[in-house]
Amino acid sequence: MANAEQYPSVAFQGTHYAFSEIAARTFFHGKIRTLPCRSFEDVFQAVDTGRARTGIVPIENSLTGSIHRNFDLLLEYDVQITGETALRIVQNLIALPGAKLADIRTIYSHPQALEQCRRFLSGLKNVDAIAKYDTAGSVKEIREKMMSSAAAIASQQAARDYDMQILQADIEDFPENFTRFHIISKEAGEIPPADKTSIAFAMKNIPGALFKSLSVFALRDIDLLKIESRPLRGKPWAYLFYLDFAGNMAEERCQNAIRHLEEITSFLKVLGSYPSHQNHS
Amino acid sequence: MANAEQYPSVAFQGTHYAFSEIAARTFFHGKIRTLPCRSFEDVFQAVDTGRARTGIVPIENSLTGSIHRNFDLLLEYDVQITGETALRIVQNLIALPGAKLADIRTIYSHPQALEQCRRFLSGLKNVDAIAKYDTAGSVKEIREKMMSSAAAIASQQAARDYDMQILQADIEDFPENFTRFHIISKEAGEIPPADKTSIAFAMKNIPGALFKSLSVFALRDIDLLKIESRPLRGKPWAYLFYLDFAGNMAEERCQNAIRHLEEITSFLKVLGSYPSHQNHS
Repeated sequence: MANAEQYPSVAFQGTHYAFSEIAARTFFHGKIRTLPCRSFEDVFQAVDTGRARTGIVPIENSLTGSIHRNFDLLLEYDVQITGETALRIVQNLIALPGAKLADIRTIYSHPQALEQCRRFLSGLKNVDAIAKYDTAGSVKEIREKMMSSAAAIASQQAARDYDMQILQADIEDFPENFTRFHIISKEAGEIPPADKTSIAFAMKNIPGALFKSLSVFALRDIDLLKIESRPLRGKPWAYLFYLDFAGNMAEERCQNAIRHLEEITSFLKVLGSYPSHQNHS
Repeated sequence: MANAEQYPSVAFQGTHYAFSEIAARTFFHGKIRTLPCRSFEDVFQAVDTGRARTGIVPIENSLTGSIHRNFDLLLEYDVQITGETALRIVQNLIALPGAKLADIRTIYSHPQALEQCRRFLSGLKNVDAIAKYDTAGSVKEIREKMMSSAAAIASQQAARDYDMQILQADIEDFPENFTRFHIISKEAGEIPPADKTSIAFAMKNIPGALFKSLSVFALRDIDLLKIESRPLRGKPWAYLFYLDFAGNMAEERCQNAIRHLEEITSFLKVLGSYPSHQNHS
């Protein structure tokens, strides 16, 4: 039987039972040790310095869009995307056993979770919503301090594992709430099963630059999966592009496309090749 | 002298002196009456029903990216984008006159403002950050209730106009914090000065669909300004595209491009032609 001490370590942002940790356990079939970190940057640092073998960070939510901070960190740190996974996010109002909704005066959670439940919160009277460092940590704090008039917004797992009560389940405003996560590592993953590559680039100021940059893939029959532009920091409204294409950097046609792309970009970074979440087993 | 009662009305989300209202006053050179609304949806409703002649909504922030809720509402409501403007967002810690930073125990603001000042907030001891409906409204509440141990995060204008004190200016984590706003109206704007058009579309499931959709512009020498994909609600990870191009729908080549695009899209909506904020005078 494998010793848990030998399982690879995975850094994540938040307290145990945060959505990132749940996603990591699903991705690695539970066979990991997890390392809670205070910030996304701490996750990248843990992986970069070797304190954790891998890390997991949310990259896109189906309601709120891309998590730009983690795209920035992918550019700043010398790490690779080596996998991805997706998780349906279900938010719950969680309190001490025996508490009643009418007694709740303060609700604690991460600002993004509060935002996702805005409609639910605005229907409550005389309740303050208080922004905290993370979702599961808010549950833990209420349990430890036995705060009888407080509730937290967090995952079902957090309620179960801290022996707390779910006052109301599924309280997010929109049910189609999925988050996609990237697995990051210092070393590139095993290339063979990878069917997806992520890159970031900025274009030279030439006519039709965006179209020309996409041509390098079309000319080689490489399908584009996602493209996103965002204002370049320091040059607002000049854009940086994030692009996912179907293929991996071990393939010659992908190497050729990237070499061609370099001719018309002022900046280019390959963020990693990895199996897409639909193909991860 | 013009009578202020005759000025056009502009709906915005928030309380007076919210960033949206400041952006609207700048865009219209002050010659407007403003209508505070509780939610972004209320802004769209006010414009759609004629209660306000125009509305203003934030559409993209240089740090946090696109505000997807407002893209959704552009698809749901029968309104047009008729202009855009950009504003540098400077966040300030604001309290009652005479208050000291050491006395502050609670800080109120909109969740997005709290998020933008996360680093500043984490450096304070024994302070709770409380999420509120908006930034300027938090300043107003502290003033009205004379809350001596509370502070709000909001604009300089909100501090000045509610006779409050700025305890610390420029507290956002990153200084390059710009927000771009769309002006929305029921009727299309005057077309002649418009140099930019925004559209939204989803593609048929055909090989190379994204590249083909961009070709319709390249083939007619129409420059692409911004492109963004986001998961389609109801079909997570099938993507909806938002695209801005240089041109207006009164031009024949733009009409031709859109007709061509319709051949390969399953959904297409022209959101409006308008002068880009660089060209607005």
